[in-house]
Amino acid sequence: MALILAINAGSSSLKFQLLDMPAEHLVTKGSVERIGLSDSIFTISVRGEKKQEIASISDHEVAVRILLERLTELKIVHSLKEIEGIGHRVVHGGETFDDSALVTDDVIKKIEELSDLAPLHNPANLVGIRAFREVLPDVPEVVVFDTAFHQSMGSEAYLYSLPYDYYKQFGIRKYGFHGTSHKYVAYRAAELLKLPIDDLRLISCHLGNGASITAVRGGKSMDTSMGFTPLAGLTMGTRSGDIDPALIPYIMDKTGMNATEVINVLNKKSGLLGLSGFSSDLRDIEKEAKRGNKRARLAIEVFVERIQKYIGSFAAKMNGVDAIVFTAGIGEHSSMVRAHVLEGLGFMGIEWDAEKNKINGKEISINTDQSKVKILVIPTNEEVMIARDTVRLSKKHQEI
Amino acid sequence: MALILAINAGSSSLKFQLLDMPAEHLVTKGSVERIGLSDSIFTISVRGEKKQEIASISDHEVAVRILLERLTELKIVHSLKEIEGIGHRVVHGGETFDDSALVTDDVIKKIEELSDLAPLHNPANLVGIRAFREVLPDVPEVVVFDTAFHQSMGSEAYLYSLPYDYYKQFGIRKYGFHGTSHKYVAYRAAELLKLPIDDLRLISCHLGNGASITAVRGGKSMDTSMGFTPLAGLTMGTRSGDIDPALIPYIMDKTGMNATEVINVLNKKSGLLGLSGFSSDLRDIEKEAKRGNKRARLAIEVFVERIQKYIGSFAAKMNGVDAIVFTAGIGEHSSMVRAHVLEGLGFMGIEWDAEKNKINGKEISINTDQSKVKILVIPTNEEVMIARDTVRLSKKHQEI
Repeated sequence: MALILAINAGSSSLKFQLLDMPAEHLVTKGSVERIGLSDSIFTISVRGEKKQEIASISDHEVAVRILLERLTELKIVHSLKEIEGIGHRVVHGGETFDDSALVTDDVIKKIEELSDLAPLHNPANLVGIRAFREVLPDVPEVVVFDTAFHQSMGSEAYLYSLPYDYYKQFGIRKYGFHGTSHKYVAYRAAELLKLPIDDLRLISCHLGNGASITAVRGGKSMDTSMGFTPLAGLTMGTRSGDIDPALIPYIMDKTGMNATEVINVLNKKSGLLGLSGFSSDLRDIEKEAKRGNKRARLAIEVFVERIQKYIGSFAAKMNGVDAIVFTAGIGEHSSMVRAHVLEGLGFMGIEWDAEKNKINGKEISINTDQSKVKILVIPTNEEVMIARDTVRLSKKHQEI
Repeated sequence: MALILAINAGSSSLKFQLLDMPAEHLVTKGSVERIGLSDSIFTISVRGEKKQEIASISDHEVAVRILLERLTELKIVHSLKEIEGIGHRVVHGGETFDDSALVTDDVIKKIEELSDLAPLHNPANLVGIRAFREVLPDVPEVVVFDTAFHQSMGSEAYLYSLPYDYYKQFGIRKYGFHGTSHKYVAYRAAELLKLPIDDLRLISCHLGNGASITAVRGGKSMDTSMGFTPLAGLTMGTRSGDIDPALIPYIMDKTGMNATEVINVLNKKSGLLGLSGFSSDLRDIEKEAKRGNKRARLAIEVFVERIQKYIGSFAAKMNGVDAIVFTAGIGEHSSMVRAHVLEGLGFMGIEWDAEKNKINGKEISINTDQSKVKILVIPTNEEVMIARDTVRLSKKHQEI
């Protein structure tokens, strides 16, 4: 088997998927959480069954060693030599990376330099990269950036209307995130539609706890709703999305918080949670809305309205749209949100099938035959994208 | 003659227009500037000729007295008794005013209470109101709010995805501005199209040094691009419009400014000025762009892109659009901006006539006969709206 590990390392966690390539078959997945604490949790799925152990895992390197030991002990792999590459999700590639990259000392240095743009994420991602370098020094590592797919945006889309020096001096621009997911569903949509991606104008709606919408023309990101950070854009589980920036000093003045604290409220106590007052999880909110809870209904209305407006703006951006894709937790599983979003967009020539829209969680086309715009639900798979890029770029490693 | 004075009072200025109603004929206009300084400037147009005098005008009451004296001295009016009403532009009506109002003690108190939402503008507007009350106590005064037209927005549009308490406790929501202009052009568009406004979905683009776009359905504002303050929305002369709110603490950190100073940069050094680096005036920027200045071109590209995206989002908001209206300085006078905006929107069924679009500064329809969406240029006239509301509400005064 040619196995690829897809890794998502946080400051105290490490999530993994082991994929058999090129079949793209998931061999196992799991996570290590609470790294550095005395009661770290290691979880792994063994032939469909979830196993968990609690132990003190002092750092990411120990976490990696335990993971690799378990892979052989639990007979998930015969030998660690089957692992031919390790792909890491890295949040921020800035303007340096418009594609995934094979890990070298230079690449590590560049990711470090970009930590200013993602102070919580890039250093944590690097910890994961370094742990594998230590434990499996001969296996090539590849980094896959959340931002890379959006590097194709034009300056008219990525520049804010701020003093131009802020861009040059401080790197202030729209970067966008969820790129790996948007790219996956965009290319998958072209496959499903049996149309060359070069000819397609797609709007991909990644609606999860974090949510973003991307305009994809000819397989390239033209614009996306997130911005300099993942706070901007749509209403999300706990994030506000776009607000009038003048509200920051106003809220500071009213509440006594400082600017960082206000942004923290915008990131963690806003969005669906702030509007509904009781949950950031759309499933809870849907349930309560059905029972007549007005604030729950309001949260859904705002959420849907922002999605509709971004779809409209990105249709304008591309002078039309051929297909709209829904993905991620809400996009894949909420018939209700999809229905509400689509029922306001008939003017674009969208016609959808209410019966088909009831199907959740799998690849399906929900437009009618007459619809001018195709509507697809496509479960996203960032790990497969990471594994694909790891295979592609590991070959470079062999050539070196 | 039945004359109405339309007044726009700032902290050290007072602009006026005298209109003959119901003919809506402009009798004279002018301004008093640098009020409170030793070299105040009084300007008035006398039968087409501009007269100016420099004198010390200590406060707004003195300014009003001089204005009224000159009106008779210069034989613009025979007697001040011809002035049947005074209409004042007031920036912020909050949630209190969804229409213009006859000035009473109670109305003044309410405008004062709203000063927290518009600390620079409402107190200055009140100074103008009080000055006329003092000098012409028997003439009814009416207040016309920039925000009132937008009070018809639904909660899904006006609420930010913030903790709901921020709305209840601090009045944090989208208010929108330029309402008097948007209302004027929307109703005028319906007249020009000879269609009942109740059946129309309009997008009105008020593009001046300040700029905003409004979705108007059935004569009511459904959504607008400005927000809690006039900073939000489009790229403007010096204002940034929408940015990722997380940029505020980042810019603070990078520059050492505090939050208020950052917002000041966003209000005064951003927009077209920030992008181009040399001017906030689109006319200068167009000139330089033609000469090949890249930053000038960039500023135009960003400006146009934001307008297109808002048009797209508001078309989605109303599930379609019947007519788009361009107004204010740039909207009325820049064929180039209109052309660039429209050429990206063919997917909506927009077809426009390049020859007609060359005409600037007057009411004209620039769509082709085949176009599904009508495109109008309509010079705005906020003072006429103020005068109309003053006539309408002054009648109430007589009834009292």
